[in-house]
Amino acid sequence: MSEPIDFLFSTPAMSAIFSAEAHVSSILAFEAALAQAEARASVIPASAASAITAHCRLELFDINTLYQEAAVAGTLAIPLVRMLTAQIEGEAHKYVHWGATSQDALDTALMMQAREGINQLVDGLLAICALCASLAEQHRGTLMIGRTLLQPALPITFGMKTARWLSMLLRQLQALDEVRTRALAVQLGGAAGTLAALGNKGPQVVEFLADSLQLPVPDLPWHTERDRVTHIATVLGVIAGAMAKIAEDLVLLSQGEVGEAVEQSAPGKGGSSALPQKHNPVYATSALASSRLALGEVPVLLAAMVQEHERGVGGWQAEWIALPNLFRYTACAVARVQSALTGLQIDDIRMRANIELTGGLIMSESLTMALAHHLGRPVAQSIVKAACEHASRVDISLQQAAMAEEQISSILTAAEIEQALDPASYLGSSDIFIDRALKDYHELRIARGGV
Amino acid sequence: MSEPIDFLFSTPAMSAIFSAEAHVSSILAFEAALAQAEARASVIPASAASAITAHCRLELFDINTLYQEAAVAGTLAIPLVRMLTAQIEGEAHKYVHWGATSQDALDTALMMQAREGINQLVDGLLAICALCASLAEQHRGTLMIGRTLLQPALPITFGMKTARWLSMLLRQLQALDEVRTRALAVQLGGAAGTLAALGNKGPQVVEFLADSLQLPVPDLPWHTERDRVTHIATVLGVIAGAMAKIAEDLVLLSQGEVGEAVEQSAPGKGGSSALPQKHNPVYATSALASSRLALGEVPVLLAAMVQEHERGVGGWQAEWIALPNLFRYTACAVARVQSALTGLQIDDIRMRANIELTGGLIMSESLTMALAHHLGRPVAQSIVKAACEHASRVDISLQQAAMAEEQISSILTAAEIEQALDPASYLGSSDIFIDRALKDYHELRIARGGV
Amino acid sequence: MSEPIDFLFSTPAMSAIFSAEAHVSSILAFEAALAQAEARASVIPASAASAITAHCRLELFDINTLYQEAAVAGTLAIPLVRMLTAQIEGEAHKYVHWGATSQDALDTALMMQAREGINQLVDGLLAICALCASLAEQHRGTLMIGRTLLQPALPITFGMKTARWLSMLLRQLQALDEVRTRALAVQLGGAAGTLAALGNKGPQVVEFLADSLQLPVPDLPWHTERDRVTHIATVLGVIAGAMAKIAEDLVLLSQGEVGEAVEQSAPGKGGSSALPQKHNPVYATSALASSRLALGEVPVLLAAMVQEHERGVGGWQAEWIALPNLFRYTACAVARVQSALTGLQIDDIRMRANIELTGGLIMSESLTMALAHHLGRPVAQSIVKAACEHASRVDISLQQAAMAEEQISSILTAAEIEQALDPASYLGSSDIFIDRALKDYHELRIARGGV
Amino acid sequence: MSEPIDFLFSTPAMSAIFSAEAHVSSILAFEAALAQAEARASVIPASAASAITAHCRLELFDINTLYQEAAVAGTLAIPLVRMLTAQIEGEAHKYVHWGATSQDALDTALMMQAREGINQLVDGLLAICALCASLAEQHRGTLMIGRTLLQPALPITFGMKTARWLSMLLRQLQALDEVRTRALAVQLGGAAGTLAALGNKGPQVVEFLADSLQLPVPDLPWHTERDRVTHIATVLGVIAGAMAKIAEDLVLLSQGEVGEAVEQSAPGKGGSSALPQKHNPVYATSALASSRLALGEVPVLLAAMVQEHERGVGGWQAEWIALPNLFRYTACAVARVQSALTGLQIDDIRMRANIELTGGLIMSESLTMALAHHLGRPVAQSIVKAACEHASRVDISLQQAAMAEEQISSILTAAEIEQALDPASYLGSSDIFIDRALKDYHELRIARGGV
Repeated sequence: MSEPIDFLFSTPAMSAIFSAEAHVSSILAFEAALAQAEARASVIPASAASAITAHCRLELFDINTLYQEAAVAGTLAIPLVRMLTAQIEGEAHKYVHWGATSQDALDTALMMQAREGINQLVDGLLAICALCASLAEQHRGTLMIGRTLLQPALPITFGMKTARWLSMLLRQLQALDEVRTRALAVQLGGAAGTLAALGNKGPQVVEFLADSLQLPVPDLPWHTERDRVTHIATVLGVIAGAMAKIAEDLVLLSQGEVGEAVEQSAPGKGGSSALPQKHNPVYATSALASSRLALGEVPVLLAAMVQEHERGVGGWQAEWIALPNLFRYTACAVARVQSALTGLQIDDIRMRANIELTGGLIMSESLTMALAHHLGRPVAQSIVKAACEHASRVDISLQQAAMAEEQISSILTAAEIEQALDPASYLGSSDIFIDRALKDYHELRIARGGV
Repeated sequence: MSEPIDFLFSTPAMSAIFSAEAHVSSILAFEAALAQAEARASVIPASAASAITAHCRLELFDINTLYQEAAVAGTLAIPLVRMLTAQIEGEAHKYVHWGATSQDALDTALMMQAREGINQLVDGLLAICALCASLAEQHRGTLMIGRTLLQPALPITFGMKTARWLSMLLRQLQALDEVRTRALAVQLGGAAGTLAALGNKGPQVVEFLADSLQLPVPDLPWHTERDRVTHIATVLGVIAGAMAKIAEDLVLLSQGEVGEAVEQSAPGKGGSSALPQKHNPVYATSALASSRLALGEVPVLLAAMVQEHERGVGGWQAEWIALPNLFRYTACAVARVQSALTGLQIDDIRMRANIELTGGLIMSESLTMALAHHLGRPVAQSIVKAACEHASRVDISLQQAAMAEEQISSILTAAEIEQALDPASYLGSSDIFIDRALKDYHELRIARGGV
Repeated sequence: MSEPIDFLFSTPAMSAIFSAEAHVSSILAFEAALAQAEARASVIPASAASAITAHCRLELFDINTLYQEAAVAGTLAIPLVRMLTAQIEGEAHKYVHWGATSQDALDTALMMQAREGINQLVDGLLAICALCASLAEQHRGTLMIGRTLLQPALPITFGMKTARWLSMLLRQLQALDEVRTRALAVQLGGAAGTLAALGNKGPQVVEFLADSLQLPVPDLPWHTERDRVTHIATVLGVIAGAMAKIAEDLVLLSQGEVGEAVEQSAPGKGGSSALPQKHNPVYATSALASSRLALGEVPVLLAAMVQEHERGVGGWQAEWIALPNLFRYTACAVARVQSALTGLQIDDIRMRANIELTGGLIMSESLTMALAHHLGRPVAQSIVKAACEHASRVDISLQQAAMAEEQISSILTAAEIEQALDPASYLGSSDIFIDRALKDYHELRIARGGV
Repeated sequence: MSEPIDFLFSTPAMSAIFSAEAHVSSILAFEAALAQAEARASVIPASAASAITAHCRLELFDINTLYQEAAVAGTLAIPLVRMLTAQIEGEAHKYVHWGATSQDALDTALMMQAREGINQLVDGLLAICALCASLAEQHRGTLMIGRTLLQPALPITFGMKTARWLSMLLRQLQALDEVRTRALAVQLGGAAGTLAALGNKGPQVVEFLADSLQLPVPDLPWHTERDRVTHIATVLGVIAGAMAKIAEDLVLLSQGEVGEAVEQSAPGKGGSSALPQKHNPVYATSALASSRLALGEVPVLLAAMVQEHERGVGGWQAEWIALPNLFRYTACAVARVQSALTGLQIDDIRMRANIELTGGLIMSESLTMALAHHLGRPVAQSIVKAACEHASRVDISLQQAAMAEEQISSILTAAEIEQALDPASYLGSSDIFIDRALKDYHELRIARGGV
């Protein structure tokens, strides 16, 4: 089940992972795995574990009733355990939720969902990496303006720009891998974290439970030490921020006056209810909106770390919706960036034309450096600055201004000036940087068993 | 329609106001009112307005399809206007959405929903005010410890505490009234805010539209000047913060070691899946959680004010979910505080016992002031401080320590010391303050036509 | 005293208002006014009040020592009261800080500083209003592209854009006026808010104190009901957001490819350490940065509303730096927007040229509306959309495409098409909107005694 | 240099690392190291590098002037490079800042400072770990109430509580180690990230520079991919949250009605300006306040990730103060938690007395489990719940209620009931958990070369 609004701010896959149904299923999976683990550790009879497991099926529960009662009970686990117990006949019903506390069930369920959510994000990021790698390779030499503070600065290539995105995304994949290893964990501590109700079998049960649910074993229960949760949350926040960086670049490139990269058209996409000519960057816009929303959840989760004594009063409960929302919004940002990059229309002619429109001004550093070998950087910079201003004032190209300026033309030949003003000759280490990002990407693909 | 999670973090009424259905209904109400206003201003034929209005009915639209297409189109208004137009036959279909832009429809719809949302919050706050006023009156003389930095400070009364809550809530009601007057507004600007498509009829149409929808007329279109939205959002944020203050006090008062005020018991309420004896402050906890979530939306909306030129890229779109969520969470916080206060069990004997447990130490300022009239505050404070330390060290009451301290007993008689150590005699202006809060409340009730 | 970093993120005036010196001065002003009020109410001898007042002078205190001791004592008021007391000889020293608590002094001091801070912001906003009003008047007819989602939409005028800014700013001035009236207040409650140490003289002393410090009298002490503080904070947050909106528009207008409005040049301003040709929008950039920082303080203050019982543990203390920082950052944003607008170079030729570059596409709605009177909006929109696509595809103007399209040219004459494609004829109610904003501004100026 | 307010919200060491002086020094260190690296790579003459290095000394610069000019120039590097150049005579002055851009200098400087800041935090956390380890060992068997939702739940030991803190802190140390490895990096990309001005020597210069400054080499320049910065920021945010968790527990334990752990007294510490008996938890309070402030900076930095194209407009600049503030506030939170734990007065008698005050109710789960072996958990829980309610109602102990309840006493002997109600016998795996945390801590100490 998914709300209509999810079409705008989530993805179907992530909505499914964090639906109410999936959450209840995960809690039931915990209860079943707990019973199995306890049977394996000889804490409860094996037959009880089987009977319990047989009843841990979503279709036996009414989700709305569960949530309605949870609002009064304080947690979802209380009515769920009660209903589960009521459904089990005979001896077995005595052993439901044995030795556990509500938070054990809810935290473990959330961790199971987070694991799936992380997998989804990894897939999404890998898809964007593939797109960026392809763009970096293909546009390795596609000249465009590098812009600083939104002013024309130096020539770069579109391949260099996308290689930088790629490099950033590879770091996020690494961060997700780390968080998977370090932050995910089963939760089982019992009412106050001592596993008192399990006597001396506690650690063994935790291990069997973790084994069964394929989640790491924590050293200690972590009911009110929420750094695991916030570690996950902050990694997602950084990913959301990374998506916004890419989306913002795309939105800026697609401005009417820039027109260098435009999202693919599609029927019903990006129009206006008033303006027939509009072709809006819908996916990048949606990525920006979703990223803003994702970032809004991170401080909620960080602030929620102040959890009192052995169970939090308010902070823990806020996680129940903040973390799922963070996954939804981040997934949407990732999916929308992927959509925006898929079939992105790169206008390399317009990129080149925009360079031309600067009248060579973006080559001023290059000209400065050519002069600097003779005059030093400070003097060279001051001469070129004057030439730039002259060029702007009388509306000529920097080449013309340079030729007319004796302090330049007395030192550099016309050919040297022309060479210094050629954007393609002033790309520095772009190729090396692109290669590095691509190499890292290909290594990562191989490490993941890709081709 | 409402998600299961809404049971935990919203109220049914607020979920209804901000449901997808209600949003689409509001957009349809805008389209109908727009056509009517344009007919009234002779911009479109009256018959067209009638035909359009007749089709602006929720049941004619498939909500899921609308949202699904909105994700591609960029706004909900685009598919909705298309579907609406498709359903209208004859001449009238030419005049759907005449002169408007998507944002006109969405912003106006949101404002209509916000107005209803504000009404809900007002009702909720009034209910809490009534509870606080009743507690303030009833417990005007109920002595309890005033606590600063969670340390016993001075005696207060529970009536004084609730009068302060009441005073804070009355200020929030005033803020909601102001925001209703100043921030709510119809939106109609057309594609770039000039109402160009309405020729010289623009302002008249805006007025008729506003009149019909019972929303104020703005001076100018406000597509990208979002202070109206953030004004609403910040008032809600402050309300959520106020709820958290009350809920935190309740949670602290209900601690096992304090036990002065405890939420009413109810079947299925506040138990534990592990601990039979538990009686958790479920409603206050839920209020704290909801307040945290509400506060999380405020910075999202403030940051979204950076809306580019004549229509925002990301910031505006983020509002579509952040503002509804803010209303939901705030409403939940308000409702839960109301529930927590309803039937709150005040244990005045425990309050008095907790005062006794301090051994008179919370009367140290009173004793200091009694001495200060003779010795000045600094010397008096230093003598009493020593007496307090002595009392703590040898585990006697401050009265015993004071009697034993010649610097005190040589100045004050035993009766004067006893009088200085009587909590009931050291309440200062509490009664006056309680009266002020109650008077303000009763005036507000009368102003609202209450009895 | 002000830190070097304040040059980048504050203004000298606001730094002065919220300096450590000013804070200590304000606390001393409180202590003096308290003594005077108590003397006036016959609580302490008039001679004591005079002696205390005589010692409430900043130069008698070592600021660094005060703050260093405050870190151990818990509040600044504790060492300050001790030092003040130590400096006063004779009877008078007995009456220092009589009946007050630390928070009374600190809160009142902060309110005094906030009042000055608000005045500063009002001045800054008024200066921006004057600039916007002048731009709105002067550029009432200066045609430019209205941009939605950063795509060309419709023609507007630069006057219309600045009128919308002006309208937004006028609302902020109103909000500041309201916050001055409703949120500012003296604080005097004594240790637990009951004014117990003042016997029955409490309310009278509060009134005299408020009168002397020119701050409103609150109905009740508000030690832990912090809505007054957050009310101020959120108004500043909205102002910071408004500044960011304007600054973002300026940054976007000054892009190399747009070039419609550029900050004034100045020696040493906006260059680059590497690029001789750079002319960066330094002030708008600084406004954006400061706005981001200001917005960061708002949630800190909102979250700090959860203040426990009669004195907060952590939340209150966080205000001591968060509120001053919020004032500093907001003031910087306001000052930088003012600087950016002062001498802003408007390039109306470039604005017009950018319109031309769209090949008439931004007039598509106008053409649609012209046709819509004959064909209805839906059919007209679909015909014009096709014409727009045709124009884009074969790189002709919309006028050429319209003439070539029989569905258009059979209905509209060449002159009608030309008329429909004239930007200047499609400005709707822009003039009326500009007039409204200017009228509101002039009324405000008159109300404030301006010319 | 440090502001007075830093006494309250920073530490001297962290203030020094992030002072204006240290920042300028770091930029100068970058310029010197850059020149050396370029000389080593034969890009500039060795003599120039020596001359430049000789002038990269803080005392040659006026900090205030630098910052004042930076406000106009847009970055600190611009006036600094100009002043540095002006001071160098002869050939060498030509080669200052060769091939670099302002952001290269500022980002690298910030990374150098961040490295020192991280070291400081590591030292602080290690000190707290030592305190927690000692408390965990010493209070391994010190019985106290485990509290969930601030209600008495089950017995734990103070050792178990501190072991959980310890475990959380060890994870933060690991996170800091990782961030040191992965996020720190030198920045050198030149004006648009291509290192164009260094021809084909770029990567070599980066390597030499990184080597000299002892910072890692990044794969690509990262001017507008700010995940490195936010990775650092979020780790600090989680640390600040962890500090708040510990501080909150301490504040709650030191409540008058709980009195289980109290901060050490000291002259001038934790008193009140009004109340002689007060002993406020000043350090924990300060930690809570600083943590709130630290958390406020994290979303500022995350939101600042949206940096446009090759240099950000507003987002980057906001980092200049947000990241230093985040380090300051976090350091203060860490230092204050350390102070609060140093000499913390543990009252094990009060802890035991608080257990007794529950009348055995916190042993209800234990009694339930004893019965559950005979009756199953559900029936046992319901019988014990009734006994708990009976005990509360008639004010007897759970032991008395259990003895009186036939459903219990018919199954368990008096000795078994007594045994089930003995807190010391119901600590589950506490010892194992404590051992695990201590083992991890000792391994970490050994890994760091400790004894």
